[in-house]
Amino acid sequence: MDAKSKKILAAYREQGARVETKARVKLRDKKDFSLWYTPGVATASRHLTAHPEDARLMSVKKNSVAVVSDGSAVLGLGNIGPYGALPVMEGKALIFKEKGNVDAWPIVLNTQDSEEIIKIVKAIAPNFGGINLEDIAAPRCFDIERRLVEELDIPVMHDDQHGTAIVVLAGLLNATKVVKKNFNKLKVVISGAGAAGTAVAKLLKAAGISDIILLDRTGIIYAGRAGLNGHKKELAALTNPRKVKGGIAEAMHGADVFIGVSGKGLLKSEQVATMAPRRIVFAMANPDPEILPEEAKKGGAAVIATGRSDYPNQINNALVFPGIFRGALDKGVKKITTETKLRAARGLAALVIRPTAAKIIPDLLDSRVVKAVARAVR
Amino acid sequence: MDAKSKKILAAYREQGARVETKARVKLRDKKDFSLWYTPGVATASRHLTAHPEDARLMSVKKNSVAVVSDGSAVLGLGNIGPYGALPVMEGKALIFKEKGNVDAWPIVLNTQDSEEIIKIVKAIAPNFGGINLEDIAAPRCFDIERRLVEELDIPVMHDDQHGTAIVVLAGLLNATKVVKKNFNKLKVVISGAGAAGTAVAKLLKAAGISDIILLDRTGIIYAGRAGLNGHKKELAALTNPRKVKGGIAEAMHGADVFIGVSGKGLLKSEQVATMAPRRIVFAMANPDPEILPEEAKKGGAAVIATGRSDYPNQINNALVFPGIFRGALDKGVKKITTETKLRAARGLAALVIRPTAAKIIPDLLDSRVVKAVARAVR
Repeated sequence: MDAKSKKILAAYREQGARVETKARVKLRDKKDFSLWYTPGVATASRHLTAHPEDARLMSVKKNSVAVVSDGSAVLGLGNIGPYGALPVMEGKALIFKEKGNVDAWPIVLNTQDSEEIIKIVKAIAPNFGGINLEDIAAPRCFDIERRLVEELDIPVMHDDQHGTAIVVLAGLLNATKVVKKNFNKLKVVISGAGAAGTAVAKLLKAAGISDIILLDRTGIIYAGRAGLNGHKKELAALTNPRKVKGGIAEAMHGADVFIGVSGKGLLKSEQVATMAPRRIVFAMANPDPEILPEEAKKGGAAVIATGRSDYPNQINNALVFPGIFRGALDKGVKKITTETKLRAARGLAALVIRPTAAKIIPDLLDSRVVKAVARAVR
Repeated sequence: MDAKSKKILAAYREQGARVETKARVKLRDKKDFSLWYTPGVATASRHLTAHPEDARLMSVKKNSVAVVSDGSAVLGLGNIGPYGALPVMEGKALIFKEKGNVDAWPIVLNTQDSEEIIKIVKAIAPNFGGINLEDIAAPRCFDIERRLVEELDIPVMHDDQHGTAIVVLAGLLNATKVVKKNFNKLKVVISGAGAAGTAVAKLLKAAGISDIILLDRTGIIYAGRAGLNGHKKELAALTNPRKVKGGIAEAMHGADVFIGVSGKGLLKSEQVATMAPRRIVFAMANPDPEILPEEAKKGGAAVIATGRSDYPNQINNALVFPGIFRGALDKGVKKITTETKLRAARGLAALVIRPTAAKIIPDLLDSRVVKAVARAVR
């Protein structure tokens, strides 16, 4: 382990938990106990038995979100299970509180069976006001999310999909202004056809872009490619209208935009050089991007973004999830629709009044972000 | 609804949630984000993937407890489901924090299937340091607890059973001093053979009392009674050495102690009058006891306790559960043994230096309580 990692680990050890609970009422005397515990609590229990819908007015359900993961696709680390996932979910719970004043609790699951996950999340839903699914591998994540959205009466969002898609769209709206191109006519290449890539493709399409090429590990996805599973067949039908075949080199030729949600070093500067003029590169694999900004620049990229905090233009879902759930909880919204996602992206983009190559997306520390995103939820 | 209930409900509505989350680290700048979220969090994730046992040193697991209920036996209200249970579990989470500085989160389940409950609790266990089972009906609660204790590597305690048993034993140790009797020779009647009654009987037996009679709705439990289920057969074998048959009247005749964990008004003052001299009555049904203290006094009771805060001697598990889990979390203890329960009861009783009829148990507000109970956990 290198010195930097050792230092980080020491900080986590010294810190212990990064979130805790806090009492919102005091227990100073017997009257407090009688009101907030027995016998007073029986009155609240009787009421919620008859009116379960009031749980969102008079319990933790009012402001709480479960951050649920099975640890099957954590960051760029892969299938590392519940304990590996825990620091990420706890980090999200921390950001939920600090940015959105949402009471989120990490729930990491000791199972990766889709039906079991659906059952468990449905079973624990009564005391949560929303479910943030996280770091669940594709294609299982699509079914799990769809079923939970259908079967629960609280908002459910797989953040790897929609948080990413919203923040990418926000960044792309501003990057397009910087390079002065027509948004709808952009030729977009997306590297990675998992949770994030799929959701980005669908949201860009909903936003008006029709020329999108998706790549998975095998290469460009096109209708009729051998061995496509159901989810990839759906993607093939939705994308690649010019029916391009091949790999990253073929995809990049003449493209306006590269969006990487795949893995370290998959893109070379020579390939960037084959893109259309005034090219845009979002290399968002974490912690190691598809191409380092220095290399993308060598290839002539005009606007460059990553998922990292040590380069300009950090495209990070932390800009999105606190606001989405803040808005949903405040307004009692039960579904996060495509319209909501589009509005959220536009609201986020609009916070950068005059986008430049070095500033296409608001900063994580920008206090206006949560409100702008929450406003989109109706 | 009466005026008092309306007032309570209004307070709950105005309050909303009674517990929330709190950040234990600040997110002031990009450095904080880099350390506590990406990319720093990947180092913690990698470490916990290889060393899951360290989750209890560097995550919410360090100090957290899930307060889990299926709502099948809530207070004296019966099977009212997850929403009815929620205010009670949230109240416990509040007490956990205020009394024991334990980060407890309510988890109310939308299922009452024992196998599903076991599966769910096992699945969500990775991010909790302990499991407090609550308000799950007998006899299902016994199997659920036994299985979870066997199959999980964190402490699991069904508080209705063991919290109650510990606080009853503590009260009885001091009540016995007040009436100057030999503890081991006490004749004890327990009304109620559910979760609490069963655990009280077993713990009193472990503490040295052999003459215990248990009553369920049918009457006195004895070996050979028709229609006993497996759990009641076990109780019949453990208790009632004099093979008494009949109902409450037969049981009470000559008894030294009555312990009620059953229901409102089941005991009459005339029956108290048939007990042995210097009689002890613990009428703990909540919110309405088996006999009101005024009536027990008419029957000649020398020491009277209830579960209520508006009479002296409140026998309440809130005296126990924060300390048990505080101790277990601090010391990494994985099982709450019978020895631990006996020590906890003795430690709690010892806080009352000179027990009197009006003071056999420490007050809920007594700040020494948690430490005394936690000390018992080794």
